[in-house]
Amino acid sequence: MTPDLDAVDAWWRAANYLSAGQIYLTGNPLFSRPLEPRDIKARQLGHWGTTPGLTFLQAHAMRAIVARGIDMLFVAGPGHGGPAMLAGSWLDGSYSERHPEVTRDARGMAELFRQFSFPGGVPSHAAAPTPGSIHEGGELGYSLAHATGAAFDNPELTVLCVVGDGEAETGALATSWHSHRFLRPERDGMVLPVLHLNGYRIAAPTILGRMPKHEIAALFAGFGWNPIFVEGDDPAKMHSGMAAAMDTCLDAHARIRRTGTGRPPMIVLRSPKGWTGPREVDGDPVEGTFRAHQVPLDVPREDGPQLRQLEDWLRGYRPDELFPDGRPSDLVLSLVPEGDRRLGATPHADGGRLTRPLDLPPAEAAALDISAPGAVTDSATKVLGHWLADVIRRNPRTFRLFGPDETASNRLDAVFDASPRYAPGRVEETDTDLAPDGRVMEVLSEHLCEGWLEGYLLTGRHGLFNSYEAFIPIVASMATQHVKWMREAKETGWRAPIPSLNWLLSSHVWRQDHNGFTHQDPGFLDHLAAKGAEMVRLYLPPDANTLLAVAEQVLASTDRANCIVAGKQPEPQWLSLDAARAHLGSGFGIWDWAADDPDPQVVIAAAGDVPTLEALAAVDLLRREAPDLRLRFVNVVDLMALQPPDLNPDGAPDAAFDAAFGTDIPVIFAFHGYPGLVHELAYRRAAHARLHVHGYGEKGTTTTPFEMVAMNGLDRFTLALDAADRAGHPAPRLRAVCADLRDRQHAHSRETGTDLPEIRDWSWPAAPLPTGPGGDDDDA
Amino acid sequence: MTPDLDAVDAWWRAANYLSAGQIYLTGNPLFSRPLEPRDIKARQLGHWGTTPGLTFLQAHAMRAIVARGIDMLFVAGPGHGGPAMLAGSWLDGSYSERHPEVTRDARGMAELFRQFSFPGGVPSHAAAPTPGSIHEGGELGYSLAHATGAAFDNPELTVLCVVGDGEAETGALATSWHSHRFLRPERDGMVLPVLHLNGYRIAAPTILGRMPKHEIAALFAGFGWNPIFVEGDDPAKMHSGMAAAMDTCLDAHARIRRTGTGRPPMIVLRSPKGWTGPREVDGDPVEGTFRAHQVPLDVPREDGPQLRQLEDWLRGYRPDELFPDGRPSDLVLSLVPEGDRRLGATPHADGGRLTRPLDLPPAEAAALDISAPGAVTDSATKVLGHWLADVIRRNPRTFRLFGPDETASNRLDAVFDASPRYAPGRVEETDTDLAPDGRVMEVLSEHLCEGWLEGYLLTGRHGLFNSYEAFIPIVASMATQHVKWMREAKETGWRAPIPSLNWLLSSHVWRQDHNGFTHQDPGFLDHLAAKGAEMVRLYLPPDANTLLAVAEQVLASTDRANCIVAGKQPEPQWLSLDAARAHLGSGFGIWDWAADDPDPQVVIAAAGDVPTLEALAAVDLLRREAPDLRLRFVNVVDLMALQPPDLNPDGAPDAAFDAAFGTDIPVIFAFHGYPGLVHELAYRRAAHARLHVHGYGEKGTTTTPFEMVAMNGLDRFTLALDAADRAGHPAPRLRAVCADLRDRQHAHSRETGTDLPEIRDWSWPAAPLPTGPGGDDDDA
Repeated sequence: MTPDLDAVDAWWRAANYLSAGQIYLTGNPLFSRPLEPRDIKARQLGHWGTTPGLTFLQAHAMRAIVARGIDMLFVAGPGHGGPAMLAGSWLDGSYSERHPEVTRDARGMAELFRQFSFPGGVPSHAAAPTPGSIHEGGELGYSLAHATGAAFDNPELTVLCVVGDGEAETGALATSWHSHRFLRPERDGMVLPVLHLNGYRIAAPTILGRMPKHEIAALFAGFGWNPIFVEGDDPAKMHSGMAAAMDTCLDAHARIRRTGTGRPPMIVLRSPKGWTGPREVDGDPVEGTFRAHQVPLDVPREDGPQLRQLEDWLRGYRPDELFPDGRPSDLVLSLVPEGDRRLGATPHADGGRLTRPLDLPPAEAAALDISAPGAVTDSATKVLGHWLADVIRRNPRTFRLFGPDETASNRLDAVFDASPRYAPGRVEETDTDLAPDGRVMEVLSEHLCEGWLEGYLLTGRHGLFNSYEAFIPIVASMATQHVKWMREAKETGWRAPIPSLNWLLSSHVWRQDHNGFTHQDPGFLDHLAAKGAEMVRLYLPPDANTLLAVAEQVLASTDRANCIVAGKQPEPQWLSLDAARAHLGSGFGIWDWAADDPDPQVVIAAAGDVPTLEALAAVDLLRREAPDLRLRFVNVVDLMALQPPDLNPDGAPDAAFDAAFGTDIPVIFAFHGYPGLVHELAYRRAAHARLHVHGYGEKGTTTTPFEMVAMNGLDRFTLALDAADRAGHPAPRLRAVCADLRDRQHAHSRETGTDLPEIRDWSWPAAPLPTGPGGDDDDA
Repeated sequence: MTPDLDAVDAWWRAANYLSAGQIYLTGNPLFSRPLEPRDIKARQLGHWGTTPGLTFLQAHAMRAIVARGIDMLFVAGPGHGGPAMLAGSWLDGSYSERHPEVTRDARGMAELFRQFSFPGGVPSHAAAPTPGSIHEGGELGYSLAHATGAAFDNPELTVLCVVGDGEAETGALATSWHSHRFLRPERDGMVLPVLHLNGYRIAAPTILGRMPKHEIAALFAGFGWNPIFVEGDDPAKMHSGMAAAMDTCLDAHARIRRTGTGRPPMIVLRSPKGWTGPREVDGDPVEGTFRAHQVPLDVPREDGPQLRQLEDWLRGYRPDELFPDGRPSDLVLSLVPEGDRRLGATPHADGGRLTRPLDLPPAEAAALDISAPGAVTDSATKVLGHWLADVIRRNPRTFRLFGPDETASNRLDAVFDASPRYAPGRVEETDTDLAPDGRVMEVLSEHLCEGWLEGYLLTGRHGLFNSYEAFIPIVASMATQHVKWMREAKETGWRAPIPSLNWLLSSHVWRQDHNGFTHQDPGFLDHLAAKGAEMVRLYLPPDANTLLAVAEQVLASTDRANCIVAGKQPEPQWLSLDAARAHLGSGFGIWDWAADDPDPQVVIAAAGDVPTLEALAAVDLLRREAPDLRLRFVNVVDLMALQPPDLNPDGAPDAAFDAAFGTDIPVIFAFHGYPGLVHELAYRRAAHARLHVHGYGEKGTTTTPFEMVAMNGLDRFTLALDAADRAGHPAPRLRAVCADLRDRQHAHSRETGTDLPEIRDWSWPAAPLPTGPGGDDDDA
């Protein structure tokens, strides 16, 4: 080996030693005396199998960083090999900077070992407490998407992304191999994937591990990469091979950066699972088999052959040479880059440190002028699109819009005035709004949209994911994992807040009447609500200006997962921008212009644009046809505000809740999603015992918009009649009017496939209202 | 064209005509007079773009079926091209058999057109009402996985699977290209994928559509396929090309079936989007561009150029020739196979017709002998594994176990006695439980596991998906879509019930203390619960025998989605098999041996294995340290039984609920998942106002099992003290005991990384109990 590879090998041995130490040792970290049973952890946890591959790649990454003076972010797909990342950051000093009690000496090494996978210590994965990590690798599949998101708009950055061959079987990862097509050398960084073929998952071989080499080569050539193979188990040969491969790749990156073109390289590393670990245990082969996946050698806390085998194994790394006085030797440290170039110290892995708040345009320019509630009809997402175009213009390197080819369908197409879609291939004459420098990222994979956005946010930038509501649950589990990451990151105390993860769901359940049942699902709200209001907020703006107010708020927020559900169809508009901002500020509120009797018999409430429309139409019906019924109308925009303050730091106090919803009168609640969710959030409130929620009852098909709400009992007639019934009002005129309209609507829709004009075009107020509630009661 | 291709072309034109007719026409289906505005649908819905490709492939599939006498199932990935599938089944007569009002004549054609995407009619996708379909294609990505599942254990079947180039961008589809490696010619059918490159998604080009041909060829060669290209837009040439390609593929299938080996073929069809539709509309190109995606030509209901353009377009198919008297011509019909070989009539697409109930072994053989509650310690999933091995043995061609490499980790490894894992590649000497004829299907893609299983079920067979609990939300959206399919299928009235979709979730939130926060998530229960008890059941068996009882029940059920959460760690066992079956039968019940005071002050309830253990330990503490506190213990196994009968047909009547939980005493409920779910299900019950749920509070890390429950307030101490507090009992001795044990536990776990032996090894009863509740009260 050349001298520089001596350092690589020494560092590698040191990191492997430290990794095994974390799994096994609770004392005697440097064999100052022979290993004794008391030095062994009672419960041995950790994933050894992938670890030596990760340390090998970290070592070679550092060699390249130092040699070339480049910035690199290391993404460990097999993040369950946490010991490797922890060992690396301990060796480069960043671990001690973040965890001062774990010093870079013998005492700190003991503590590094003890605290690993230990109560009160650090998790076994490359989790938020791990310096240099943006990717925990617990739920597999997202490493390459995260790496790509990190590279967007970071032209100087190289993201080395290790992909395990187990992870490579997942859907998200399989389609991530297309990601390089979405990187533009002039403005984006380089992603260098390393497919690590160690051949095994937990208990069985991987698909890629058993594919012939020519198939692997064809596969990645087909995905557009230039694969370079490094294969073997002899450390010296492997060091030479990997150093050469890394140089080839980084030379290719330099060429691509210079020329703007070229096939990006990747590395296929084939090395034994559990490399350098026990070859055999109790007669079974371990190194190079699935048996090396987790703890390769069970060591009971007693003197015996296992204890001796462990000691032999660990001494094989020559720790006395590597840590002469407990600290890493000069040779080991000679590999480590300086300052922020250290893998554990790169600010890209603590993206909040790099975050600049967005320059948000005043919403006033996009807002609708509302002379009176219902006087204007417009599309909420269309209005938002104009504002988002301005966001893109003002933040040309720190904001992107993501979505699965639905930007135009979701009526956000005004953004194309500011930036076209990104073109991952050639552009043809017949294409529209598509260009190689586009900043609207479309790909028909919710996993890629989500993974790219997460990578972009984790490295300190901003974004918004727009999707059809029904299909966002495709990334339900990714959402969970990102929320978990943010929660753990907050708990570290040292990670800076990162921009929030924002979803805009449109083409929602009530307006997918044309696409049918598969496109009708509001369940993402339920999924997120369970994760708790400390991290999650759910917004249901009823109109365009409220959507603008919500968008302003979420794009300025940090460390949250914000889900907005908004309509795209032209609808009556209710609030001025000022009123919308005030409404959002309180989470929910009485709309006095609709109904605000000081002594209501019944509250009609709504959350969501279509429920608001139907609920207001119900109020309108009631005010005309049962004018003596004393009503109040409440609109909810911040759904989690229904939770009390002990469950949601921003939840409405009981006094505010009771002032809006009352405590002993029926509440007819028209809700966008599954009714159970409102009960789940509001069950502690006084009003709950008389809360009657109308929402999505899992009934749908291809039909008209009104028939969709009618199928689910969310229509104005059902709401109005339920209100009258719950208030004990006979309302004969109302009954007659509803029955007539309902019959005519059903007949009309079955005849024409469209809704009755007076229902379709209804707005508030449908005709001049009576002078006020409490007038003459000709129903009596 | 050769004569047989004349029939193919005629059929294709007929199907295209019928497809466009469905989108546009509400009357005058055969131009008995010039088209008038009143013949046009007021609202034109449907996806034209993909349709001519689907009809083209159906035509060529039929040619092959007839020529070769083979059974074929047609899976339309772009199922949003529903008109194509509906046209096909109308032409082959199967549509009229299922929808008798839609006869195969002029009158029926008018009805076919009218009812499409129309209120009261049929959805716009290849949904459950579509004969011959097992795949709606609403949420994209699952066609090839479904096709593969359909082919398992159907050695005579050929599954032609059309994959759209939009769908091909999804993660699930990207990894599905590996699926052929899991088909074994001796026992499984053939899947023939057709990648349909029409170049565009809704509004932009696809990635694959713009990839150079050599990259596409390399990509699929890398995935192990032999791709055959059919490209162009001239119908005559394309017919010849496709017929030859289809013959080549089916010849290759025959060879592979004969020899058991060979690279499977696939077809890459490149044809214009909206082929044969309007070339240009208002000066914009439409055919061959994204503009053909949905309705290519907006036709107002007025006389004008659009109406004429539509008429010219439709007349171009020469309907008078194709439907001489309103019925399909002899030439068109000559292409159609006979009887069950028709694509719309294949029983494989109505799998319930082929279902044979499983031969289920008696659970007695596997059940644990329980002399007394807590007397035996064992692993629930391990016990189940023995029974599942018998299920595999008794049902060698109709049952499979699916999972992402977690079968052994979930302690189901006894199944390997009956069948090893399937080996998708070569087997090496060091592999265990792996063979080319294995029936345990493992792949590290939850999407493939789920999609394969769904395809297997939809074609009438049985299965079980075992997974880590935390990662099953990866397929949350697939679960939703399958439940939607089952619901719609039931509503058709003609589809036979299919075996239920069953998940077994183990390695659950409370016992992923070693893997950390990413592996701790019980949210799938919330996701499923929202879909409603008509379709979904959630089981939380507290021990092995109850798990057996649940497994018996779910594997015999149909048209349900059953989710079971069960522990894999050795735990105390509570119920005999008989008691377990009775317990399951009532959904929940009082465990009188634990606590059943006739006049309880407080109810302690539990759902889930670990919550049951903690709750029983709490009861034990209370009985010892506050023996005068009057207690009742309730265990819940069928979570949805908490819902009242109007929300769940099998929900417990209020009388039964009240008899167990009381109406006016506090209920301390120890729950496996997020507490909100219990509130969501039980909010209508009288006990709800005094229901206090302890569950997962989104707190986790790498720690010990007991520290996990303690972090979330689900531990025995918190439960016992909450019970005493809510019942107003001072319980000073209890407080002292709890404080002492808690302190010692925390100290012990921080010292050793393990739980205190008396907590870890606790069982019921920890020591002889006092003679009975209501004894002396030395607390007072």
